[in-house]
Amino acid sequence: MKFNNRNIFISPNATIGANVKIGDNTVIYDNVEIGDDSIICNDCVLGEPSNSYYHDENYINPKTKIGTNSLIRSHSIIYAGSQFGNNFSCGHRVTIRENVIAGKNLSVGTLSDIQGYVIFGNYCRLHSNVHIGQQSTIGNFVFIYPYVVFTNDPHPPSNICKGPTIGDYTQIAVHSIILPMVVIGQNCLIGANSTVNKDFGDQLVIVGSPAKAVCSIKNIKSQEKEGKSHYPWMYNFDRGMPWEGIGYQNWKFQDDIKH
Amino acid sequence: MKFNNRNIFISPNATIGANVKIGDNTVIYDNVEIGDDSIICNDCVLGEPSNSYYHDENYINPKTKIGTNSLIRSHSIIYAGSQFGNNFSCGHRVTIRENVIAGKNLSVGTLSDIQGYVIFGNYCRLHSNVHIGQQSTIGNFVFIYPYVVFTNDPHPPSNICKGPTIGDYTQIAVHSIILPMVVIGQNCLIGANSTVNKDFGDQLVIVGSPAKAVCSIKNIKSQEKEGKSHYPWMYNFDRGMPWEGIGYQNWKFQDDIKH
Amino acid sequence: MKFNNRNIFISPNATIGANVKIGDNTVIYDNVEIGDDSIICNDCVLGEPSNSYYHDENYINPKTKIGTNSLIRSHSIIYAGSQFGNNFSCGHRVTIRENVIAGKNLSVGTLSDIQGYVIFGNYCRLHSNVHIGQQSTIGNFVFIYPYVVFTNDPHPPSNICKGPTIGDYTQIAVHSIILPMVVIGQNCLIGANSTVNKDFGDQLVIVGSPAKAVCSIKNIKSQEKEGKSHYPWMYNFDRGMPWEGIGYQNWKFQDDIKH
Repeated sequence: MKFNNRNIFISPNATIGANVKIGDNTVIYDNVEIGDDSIICNDCVLGEPSNSYYHDENYINPKTKIGTNSLIRSHSIIYAGSQFGNNFSCGHRVTIRENVIAGKNLSVGTLSDIQGYVIFGNYCRLHSNVHIGQQSTIGNFVFIYPYVVFTNDPHPPSNICKGPTIGDYTQIAVHSIILPMVVIGQNCLIGANSTVNKDFGDQLVIVGSPAKAVCSIKNIKSQEKEGKSHYPWMYNFDRGMPWEGIGYQNWKFQDDIKH
Repeated sequence: MKFNNRNIFISPNATIGANVKIGDNTVIYDNVEIGDDSIICNDCVLGEPSNSYYHDENYINPKTKIGTNSLIRSHSIIYAGSQFGNNFSCGHRVTIRENVIAGKNLSVGTLSDIQGYVIFGNYCRLHSNVHIGQQSTIGNFVFIYPYVVFTNDPHPPSNICKGPTIGDYTQIAVHSIILPMVVIGQNCLIGANSTVNKDFGDQLVIVGSPAKAVCSIKNIKSQEKEGKSHYPWMYNFDRGMPWEGIGYQNWKFQDDIKH
Repeated sequence: MKFNNRNIFISPNATIGANVKIGDNTVIYDNVEIGDDSIICNDCVLGEPSNSYYHDENYINPKTKIGTNSLIRSHSIIYAGSQFGNNFSCGHRVTIRENVIAGKNLSVGTLSDIQGYVIFGNYCRLHSNVHIGQQSTIGNFVFIYPYVVFTNDPHPPSNICKGPTIGDYTQIAVHSIILPMVVIGQNCLIGANSTVNKDFGDQLVIVGSPAKAVCSIKNIKSQEKEGKSHYPWMYNFDRGMPWEGIGYQNWKFQDDIKH
């Protein structure tokens, strides 16, 4: 079915790893490097040149690096000048602009729009239709749900561009807005439809517009294990996580002794 | 103009009805069945295989059925394994994943994202950019407006996946969020920017974050007919509805005596 | 890299200006006119026919006019029957339906969805993922940020279709909703996540759900120039504006004496 080598354009200056599948109508521009065993589906553009290409005859496409075992679904556009760790996974119609540095196992959902100049830790997950403004910094194991927006201009329009900083393990629920320069701690839960306009520490449930800390995450009871807290979630959820099957505590212990 | 048979790929295992038009650059994979008189515009993917295709050599694409007289606009992606009744209509860049069962006359707007495992009744309308999480159940004549999100995980991330259930004729205005497992009755109006976190009965106006029932829908005066209620809306709106030209009451009566 | 003339379709009835670049897989239908020095990237559709094309044998595609020096990024769809002034700029996957009349220097961000029958003044900027309903009127130098929705039906579904009217220089922050028929004055700032359900005058900061005027824009202090107001923003921001480098006051003076 898929991968018929129809209407594909691959620059001679791209580097394609072993066992990579490339879908029909996909375009791969100069200086893109794709790791082994990756799948690039149809109608994608990898290494999209920046604006200056259109006007500068001496334009050289910056390097783009996609780790091994990645899966980029159809109609996604990734600009030149970013790097993604191994096991990068990407939904349909994703747009990722230049200067993104992402750890391993980043997952970006359908229609998400990453505006460039963003740092992601490892194992972050963006669900569908997340918008990350420039100059944002996102820790490890941060999950962001649909229609969340990270902003970076406190008084639009101004010349300030500085996005939020999010700590490890924090979860940001649907339709929330994180305002510029806001710093959120580790292991927080930001509730649906919140507008977060100031900094918060660790392990807090943050809700409302403007958002307030209403309690510790430990107050939220699990609906799966009676009488237990659901958060910190790492003790109750492991799908796709490095502690899958062994438990967070064991993994953390192994991880600690390695360092 | 359109439909020049350029760069089209149709699987020999697809079944294309009579008088079907297919746009340039469109791909139709195995076991897709398209009803008579349908129009599939350019750059679409129908029968997109699920993840397991990439790793399972024995993968068989599940059946996809699109009813007669359907119109699928350009750049839309419909995964294998769903079925849509007759007169299915779909905007641009729609994404619909597997295991959707839809009645007749479903209309899905541009950029909407249906995550799969969803049941729709007849004559539902999703406007642009609606996000429906898995395991949602939507009645008949339910209209959903832009940027509405149906969620399915009460404590993200968890292993629970159970979306909302929406009764017939209910209208859900822009930017509202329906939280997991919420059950909404028939003929409700959910106001713009609401966050609905509990169940509600029939014929209610539901607004706010968290949402509350503020009055009966009958309290909302029509801006078209002085002194009358606008809701239930079926008495005041018929465009594209089966009661168009004959009135809801007459249609309902005919419909009742047929059953 | 780009612009290899692969799989392009241009109607013989389209008019392409001098020095226009057209990307691979792009389609340009009847009666589209593209101004000199424009760049149309790959996978675009310009002059997309309206619904009646599918059923009317005598259909004639209405005229579409794109001004000189425009840049339309990949995967965008522009319906037949709109006109855009010079220096039109458009992100990826934009959808613009029929009967849009736009002044010069309109910028429309990635994923934005303009439903048609909209009037824009000069130098408007829509950021990513803005949704503009039909029958909206937008002044000059209006900037609209991600996930803002303009609605046009006060009691959905009804037969009323009348969008908002926005005055010059007004800024509308992320995730705000402007309800039907609302009229907003000049130089307002609508805060993030607001739901605006009534009219407002000039120079107001408008926030909340439902939105209220909380103060004059002059009360907002600049974070760049100590002790000064940031708004009216034209005195503090000039990137891409006609007063770039000369200051708003000088430009305004020149502009005034010309008229």
